[in-house]
Amino acid sequence: MQLDQAKQLRELESQLNAEYQAILAKKLNLDLTRGKPSSDQLDLSDALDGILKGNYIAADGTDTRNYGGLDGLPEAKKLGANIMGVEAANVLVGGSSSLTLMFQVALTAHLFGLKDAASAWKHEGDIAFLCPVPGYDRHFTICEQLGIKMINVPMTATGPDMDIVENLIKSDSKIKGIWCVPKYSNPTGVVYSNETVERIAKLGKIASPNFRVFWDNAYAVHDLIDNPPQLASILEATKKHNTEDSVIQFASTSKITQAGAGVAFVAASATNLAGFKKALSACTIGPDKVNQIRHTRFLPDRSALMAHMKKHAELLNPRFSAVLDALAKAFDGTDLGNWEKPVGGYFVSFDTRKNCAKETVRLAAEAGVKLTPAGATFPYGKDPDDRNIRIAPSVPTVPDVVAAMQVFVVCVKLASVRQDLAALG
Amino acid sequence: MQLDQAKQLRELESQLNAEYQAILAKKLNLDLTRGKPSSDQLDLSDALDGILKGNYIAADGTDTRNYGGLDGLPEAKKLGANIMGVEAANVLVGGSSSLTLMFQVALTAHLFGLKDAASAWKHEGDIAFLCPVPGYDRHFTICEQLGIKMINVPMTATGPDMDIVENLIKSDSKIKGIWCVPKYSNPTGVVYSNETVERIAKLGKIASPNFRVFWDNAYAVHDLIDNPPQLASILEATKKHNTEDSVIQFASTSKITQAGAGVAFVAASATNLAGFKKALSACTIGPDKVNQIRHTRFLPDRSALMAHMKKHAELLNPRFSAVLDALAKAFDGTDLGNWEKPVGGYFVSFDTRKNCAKETVRLAAEAGVKLTPAGATFPYGKDPDDRNIRIAPSVPTVPDVVAAMQVFVVCVKLASVRQDLAALG
Repeated sequence: MQLDQAKQLRELESQLNAEYQAILAKKLNLDLTRGKPSSDQLDLSDALDGILKGNYIAADGTDTRNYGGLDGLPEAKKLGANIMGVEAANVLVGGSSSLTLMFQVALTAHLFGLKDAASAWKHEGDIAFLCPVPGYDRHFTICEQLGIKMINVPMTATGPDMDIVENLIKSDSKIKGIWCVPKYSNPTGVVYSNETVERIAKLGKIASPNFRVFWDNAYAVHDLIDNPPQLASILEATKKHNTEDSVIQFASTSKITQAGAGVAFVAASATNLAGFKKALSACTIGPDKVNQIRHTRFLPDRSALMAHMKKHAELLNPRFSAVLDALAKAFDGTDLGNWEKPVGGYFVSFDTRKNCAKETVRLAAEAGVKLTPAGATFPYGKDPDDRNIRIAPSVPTVPDVVAAMQVFVVCVKLASVRQDLAALG
Repeated sequence: MQLDQAKQLRELESQLNAEYQAILAKKLNLDLTRGKPSSDQLDLSDALDGILKGNYIAADGTDTRNYGGLDGLPEAKKLGANIMGVEAANVLVGGSSSLTLMFQVALTAHLFGLKDAASAWKHEGDIAFLCPVPGYDRHFTICEQLGIKMINVPMTATGPDMDIVENLIKSDSKIKGIWCVPKYSNPTGVVYSNETVERIAKLGKIASPNFRVFWDNAYAVHDLIDNPPQLASILEATKKHNTEDSVIQFASTSKITQAGAGVAFVAASATNLAGFKKALSACTIGPDKVNQIRHTRFLPDRSALMAHMKKHAELLNPRFSAVLDALAKAFDGTDLGNWEKPVGGYFVSFDTRKNCAKETVRLAAEAGVKLTPAGATFPYGKDPDDRNIRIAPSVPTVPDVVAAMQVFVVCVKLASVRQDLAALG
């Protein structure tokens, strides 16, 4: 029986290898690595340049061309509020990058204190952040840069495993934060359930002082379908539990208008905003308000915003379908991989069998299909199970996504069957 | 004789006080506080919005709308090089604020090291910066925020007193930097002499390791006259002395195009740029390249830049003349004050007699003329002699500058004569 199995595996490997060799001969050059908008998506916002028609004055009379306005224009705060579903009074508008705002908030909390100088994390020695995995590599880089230890927490279909999160926080007073991408999580595409949001809002009650949830709502309005899942309001939940200071929200228009030239936002309690503004005032006179007013003229209200996002969805949808159809056709009912079926965001996350991710990525690269390096979705670039691969289909054309996924499927199968063969000896 | 003098002083005081009371009755509301461009100056760059006409592609094919390009577009580096008089290869292009770049470079040198982790200033305990005074308050704020001690060094008509600078640096290994505004220094308007530039370039030879000159060339092309003084090239001087790593230059278009929405630049050695980029990559994917390309289309070469700056000079010149004429008329040949006669930049700096600056600013404020708080041009806001007042005439209209200077003159005289009277007892 084992001999039969080995024979079958060898036959399968040989057949897959033939398919793989045929792919190699095509000399493909395809790229599923970075989560950035395609040119077609960027074209949707080309009206930004020239939209001011000589009128650089904000609604409150501010001359946007001059210095000042550390926390942004009132109408830009409203735009941020529309995206994040919060009050404009809780919003600070930054430059073009929410990542920079996250770094600056983390730096402020670490060195200067968000509440006061005594609240700075640096006074507590080696502190740590919880990192739901797989997650966003640039979040992890911020921790690494600031010398903050990272502790992995598994993601589930409803968000981070909250039993583990709560237990870790209760048992370790050095834990000062957690990274969250609550809607269309990077990379799994999961939307945090109402219960998860509620439990995260309560972490401020069990955590040590100065604990902060970094709530990176990067895909808040980035739905692919008409009746998308609703993310519960973390702000309302923290108000209910009197933990408003424990959560800081981030968003930007990077994947709404121009990826490199959008407007970024922080939403937080009055205490957090005051502490952040104090630190911010040492390093800037104020953000680019001309770009803010361009954006508010382009997206004047929530309905303009949602209509604009629908155009993105029309471009992204066939690409996501190409990925999900290929995965379903190849792996439904098999034990070769697991994945979520996101209805928004920028990624599909695929878990191979244990110890097959690196080999799959290597095989794909040799066949001309670039994938994000295996491990990149984990702190320090180390996926302990070597399983997770992030697929980013937004940039290539639909036929290219289809072609790339054909390669991906063959590579997953080949890595798996070769692993089986190796196990047989 | 002393009685006669006292009588004369009392008469003078009474006459000045009458003038002052007449001013009070006018209920003025004038402002000479901040060094920012006027609306007329900002109008000069209104063509920036709409200049792209749908073409967002840089010369090298980069789609400026998308992510990436940590150190900026090649043509934007060239713009920075044109402003600073350096090679484009030595330039990194940031967001809209050179102040932010200065903070980020200082933070990098302090926490992470510009050369390597071991070179970080934090390993050397309490470090210090030399601060030529009077100077720019926001430079001092960066030091204060990072916990860097500040040591005052007097400014002269040729730049910082270099004997004092060199002696301090030789005797104190904790000194890791010096702030310099080498052309039209903020606020004295002095242009560093060739000898000063040469001696600053040699500081890297006598300073302790990881010493850095922060060369804030904010007014590099901001001349008011046709044949302006030439600032010697610090880059050439450091090349000659093999101290290229010891100087980091900064500039921006804030006072060339739009004060809050310009493009900022760092120029530095390959080693410094590499260290800075490494740290920068933890907090941003890249700066706003769309704004960069707007600027390069608007100011395509050095001659376009200089023609544009001439228009600024035409607007600024009458304002500076109003200040300098008023000071000359009132104080030439007296011992009531000293000032430089800047031919560029944004400020005139006036030194009253000892212990008269605060009182002058107070009197002016009561009479409806806002001046920058006395002391603001010194570290920790403390002018030990209470002498320096920064006058910023760019924003008010010419008649308003004239009116404000009439008040200023009376306030200086009144503060001085009252001090004389108090000394007489």
